[in-house]
Amino acid sequence: MVKVTLPDGTKKDFEDNITIGEVASNINSKMGGIALAARADGVLVDLNYPIKDDISLSVITEETQEGLEIIRHSTAHIMAQAVCRLFPGVKLGIGPTIENGFYYDFDCPNHFTTEDLKKIEDEMLKIIKEDIRFERTDMPRELAVKEMEKSGQPYKVELIRDIEDDTVSFYRQNEFIDLCRGPHIQKTGRVKSFKLLSVAGAYWRGKETNSMLQRIYGTAFFTNEDLKKYLKMLEEAEKRDHRKIGKDLDLFSFHEDGGAGLAFWHPKGARMRSIIEDFWRQEHFRRGYEILYSPHIAKINLWKTSGHWDFYRESMYSPIDVDGHEYILKPMNCPFAVLIYKTKLHSYRDLPLRWGELGTVYRYERSGVLHGLLRVRGFTQDDAHIFCTPDQLEQEILEVIKLAQFMLSSFGFNEYEIELSVRGKGEKEKYIGRDDVWDHAEDALKIALEKTGLHYTRMEGEAKFYGPAIDIKVKDAIGRGWQGPTIQVDFNLPERFDVNYVGSDGYHHRVVMIHRTVMGAMERFIGCLIEHFAGDFPLWIAPIQMRILSITDAQIDYAKKLQTELLLKNFRVECDIGNNKIGYKIREGTLQKIPYLLIVGNKEMEEGLVAVRSRKNGDEGALPVRDFISKVEEEVRGKK
Amino acid sequence: MVKVTLPDGTKKDFEDNITIGEVASNINSKMGGIALAARADGVLVDLNYPIKDDISLSVITEETQEGLEIIRHSTAHIMAQAVCRLFPGVKLGIGPTIENGFYYDFDCPNHFTTEDLKKIEDEMLKIIKEDIRFERTDMPRELAVKEMEKSGQPYKVELIRDIEDDTVSFYRQNEFIDLCRGPHIQKTGRVKSFKLLSVAGAYWRGKETNSMLQRIYGTAFFTNEDLKKYLKMLEEAEKRDHRKIGKDLDLFSFHEDGGAGLAFWHPKGARMRSIIEDFWRQEHFRRGYEILYSPHIAKINLWKTSGHWDFYRESMYSPIDVDGHEYILKPMNCPFAVLIYKTKLHSYRDLPLRWGELGTVYRYERSGVLHGLLRVRGFTQDDAHIFCTPDQLEQEILEVIKLAQFMLSSFGFNEYEIELSVRGKGEKEKYIGRDDVWDHAEDALKIALEKTGLHYTRMEGEAKFYGPAIDIKVKDAIGRGWQGPTIQVDFNLPERFDVNYVGSDGYHHRVVMIHRTVMGAMERFIGCLIEHFAGDFPLWIAPIQMRILSITDAQIDYAKKLQTELLLKNFRVECDIGNNKIGYKIREGTLQKIPYLLIVGNKEMEEGLVAVRSRKNGDEGALPVRDFISKVEEEVRGKK
Repeated sequence: MVKVTLPDGTKKDFEDNITIGEVASNINSKMGGIALAARADGVLVDLNYPIKDDISLSVITEETQEGLEIIRHSTAHIMAQAVCRLFPGVKLGIGPTIENGFYYDFDCPNHFTTEDLKKIEDEMLKIIKEDIRFERTDMPRELAVKEMEKSGQPYKVELIRDIEDDTVSFYRQNEFIDLCRGPHIQKTGRVKSFKLLSVAGAYWRGKETNSMLQRIYGTAFFTNEDLKKYLKMLEEAEKRDHRKIGKDLDLFSFHEDGGAGLAFWHPKGARMRSIIEDFWRQEHFRRGYEILYSPHIAKINLWKTSGHWDFYRESMYSPIDVDGHEYILKPMNCPFAVLIYKTKLHSYRDLPLRWGELGTVYRYERSGVLHGLLRVRGFTQDDAHIFCTPDQLEQEILEVIKLAQFMLSSFGFNEYEIELSVRGKGEKEKYIGRDDVWDHAEDALKIALEKTGLHYTRMEGEAKFYGPAIDIKVKDAIGRGWQGPTIQVDFNLPERFDVNYVGSDGYHHRVVMIHRTVMGAMERFIGCLIEHFAGDFPLWIAPIQMRILSITDAQIDYAKKLQTELLLKNFRVECDIGNNKIGYKIREGTLQKIPYLLIVGNKEMEEGLVAVRSRKNGDEGALPVRDFISKVEEEVRGKK
Repeated sequence: MVKVTLPDGTKKDFEDNITIGEVASNINSKMGGIALAARADGVLVDLNYPIKDDISLSVITEETQEGLEIIRHSTAHIMAQAVCRLFPGVKLGIGPTIENGFYYDFDCPNHFTTEDLKKIEDEMLKIIKEDIRFERTDMPRELAVKEMEKSGQPYKVELIRDIEDDTVSFYRQNEFIDLCRGPHIQKTGRVKSFKLLSVAGAYWRGKETNSMLQRIYGTAFFTNEDLKKYLKMLEEAEKRDHRKIGKDLDLFSFHEDGGAGLAFWHPKGARMRSIIEDFWRQEHFRRGYEILYSPHIAKINLWKTSGHWDFYRESMYSPIDVDGHEYILKPMNCPFAVLIYKTKLHSYRDLPLRWGELGTVYRYERSGVLHGLLRVRGFTQDDAHIFCTPDQLEQEILEVIKLAQFMLSSFGFNEYEIELSVRGKGEKEKYIGRDDVWDHAEDALKIALEKTGLHYTRMEGEAKFYGPAIDIKVKDAIGRGWQGPTIQVDFNLPERFDVNYVGSDGYHHRVVMIHRTVMGAMERFIGCLIEHFAGDFPLWIAPIQMRILSITDAQIDYAKKLQTELLLKNFRVECDIGNNKIGYKIREGTLQKIPYLLIVGNKEMEEGLVAVRSRKNGDEGALPVRDFISKVEEEVRGKK
């Protein structure tokens, strides 16, 4: 008999060699139906894994993210099997799951077309219909190399050679075999809803000197409904692509002549950015922050002291020689705040000091991963560094979370996923700083989070070596998650730069530093805003808030007078007094997603009205100008 | 007989070989008395220069800047003569005039002290009393080298070797002889008012690998009154030194670890800067400008296209390698605006486009010339580029001048020196762009300047090769001039980047670009503000506007409540509720130059008052809080 401990603590006795699947069914029939794999003493195993000793068991079901990853991973294998059937001699790269799906890399002389994807899908449907069993085989490493050489899979040979274990595992579906850790579904028939999405080039192991493979992307879900929802979302996302909207609305551009990953902000994009930056600064001042400005380059030694040169070098640009000293573009703002802090002796009475900076940093990213405003090489962090005593940590963290919530909700983001990254168990040597200080900091973060009442996930072992952190992902209008605020406690810089305060006891104490952003970076945040709103920006951030359209030349003076009146009220207002027809003017204004089109004909002119056409409600009828102003002033104030 | 043409066009006949001095006395006796030298057919000559042919003559008198330079240059020679008498064997470097005075470099084993300066001054007084004649001698170059070798003057030998003429000139005062172009005063007795000011190290020819000489600075004037006024100004300037005030008021710092010439803005300095930048942006939006943001690095090719790489390279930093391309820190913002302009086809109807940018640029400066915020290696220009048609140039220039005037007067600068730099006569090949376009642009600048009614000086031959310009120097509170706004027409970039608009004729036309700043750069402008106000900033830009001082602990709550009330009114207000005596608190607040100290005792607390102590008027008595708020709101609004 073996004793199985379930996640809720209950223990059950079973016959030796009972499989995970049988245990799941034994728990209840629903569990049996939705079980896909399990963690047995923390290790991922298949459903047919036989239990030989007492273990603690956590079943992975269709209802979890891990379950989705298993079905997707199995679908990737099915896709590879289909490709091998259709294109004999194809060489296999890797085929992992990714966020929202999977891919597989193939080295194949045939250049995959959309039609090929269709054919592959059809072959996959056959394989699913054949309901083939996924069979796990463990093999000594050397034998595995030979097997893969024999079957003409050089990439797999290379992968196996890099594995350090003596035994490697394979999964076989009939004629198809693939190097894989697992776990997998039991039989191919379990896959119900999948879709191949696209094909793209990808260097083997991401290195530009390696051969170029073809990467086929796909996804899978447990129900057709979920798949449809996802495909609908993808379609919606494509319409919202900030790169397309950015071009249509003339917000920003990137230039081959300027350099990849470097954003050029056009007047309208820059206007939006400056409104957001203003709002950011005002809100920070209101909450007891001050701001700093620091240079974009500094001597390399500063980065050696900070440690960045050792652990962050691959993201840093090459040095610039100035008078025989090496300077470097800043990848982070922190050391500058530290140097400013250290220009004076600080007493505990001065703390906390909250120093924000809209600091533009430059980080190297491989050109292949650059993506519009979302992944760039130069970006402006809405950064801040808080210098405080350990006692102040909890309150400061709480205030930062509140500030982040306030900022995000001002832009219509009200759903978050929050992760608290703490040390892993039994790995104390991996972290810098005293144990009790870590405990204190982790507690402070935890208590602060709990005081907000927000749901969060505790991520054991996910803390960076220099301190625990809170990461906040925001959900956009179509349910996608976006990396947003981060709140990071740092024990490293105060240590390396010897950053202290004088305590009430008259002695010097190590200061605690918090790094934080409440939006992330201006580039990514605005990229996200564009997709969130699909360019239909709320009135308070819309670069052009209203456009006055004259019906005939007779209203030109009235239109201009109206523009002046609205400009004096600090609205961002344009005039379209050209001689196009009003229908054309309305279409143009609509394409530019201007919140309000104000149509003025003779009637409006004579009676001092504007005929309001809003993006939200369409025709709102004619209003006295004063009423319109009150209405939109209210709308701006409310950040609606 | 020779015919002499005077500046006013009158012609007079004189005997052959009449000297300049005699002609001056002949014009009138006052002119004879204040004449120092002259331009004869444009060449500088001494008063005893004999006129042999018909010439046009312009006498240089004591009343001109050139006159001051001559007396100062002669005083430098007298100083060198005195040093040679007192320190035999001293080797002479160079001794030019500079703004407000002169210096001379000496290679001397004796380390000059303040006492030495006094001794040198005494010896100079003797030389002046001896009333020695300045005698000019022309000498063949090779003979001059030998002469200087003989008299043990290796630096002079080096200088003569670099001269390309066959003949070099010397000026002799008895036993002292110096290589010099002249002109000089006739006799040492003409010097009346001089002062040696300081001594500093200076590398021979400014090169760090050369030997270090000792540079003695001095100045001279025509009257003791002028000298006294200048020394008083120097004393005042020292008190206003922005580097000292910047440290005392905790506004900014520079860091050896960060890098020379890179400003770190502390909270209070950054607050001031952000207020000024806000004001700048708002005023620009109001006047039909839009803003841009561009990256701090770009591919080097952009600078090759722009021409900067050829004519500006020594001010640019060394390249950074990114994926095999060379990138460079931007020394200017212009090419970025051009790239953005070129993302669309523009019609004449879209113009003018006024695109501002608070763009941080990096320019290499030798470490020896760096000076606080006034001369730095990284600075934020309050830049803008206006794209317009030739027809719009005059109006645009006029609007820029008005904007510059408005901005400057908002900070209390109401006196300017304005220079209009145009092409030199007969040097057309030096300038890029069509002749008629230049004529048009120079006229546009001139007419715009004249419309403002401001006094300006036309500087022939001072235009850069790419277009005419207006430079505005502002006068500060103690009468010093500061480089401020520049307005530059540019024919070069539109040509090099092929920047066009579609005219009403349907054809492409070259756009006209205006580069302009209305303050210069944030760093230099704020450095200048600090010295202009000696740290006593007007309320609207003071980083801390008011500080509440409690007399005893009994008023702590009242002080805090008051602070909250003032913060809600958007004032920048601190509390000093520590347990120091009120006298100490007042002293502290005064040293920090806080515009208003609000003293609260029991009486104020009970009656809802504040006892106001302003920097301007001292004790202003107790006021109801509401009245105080109205008063200061009015003061901020009025930018007083």
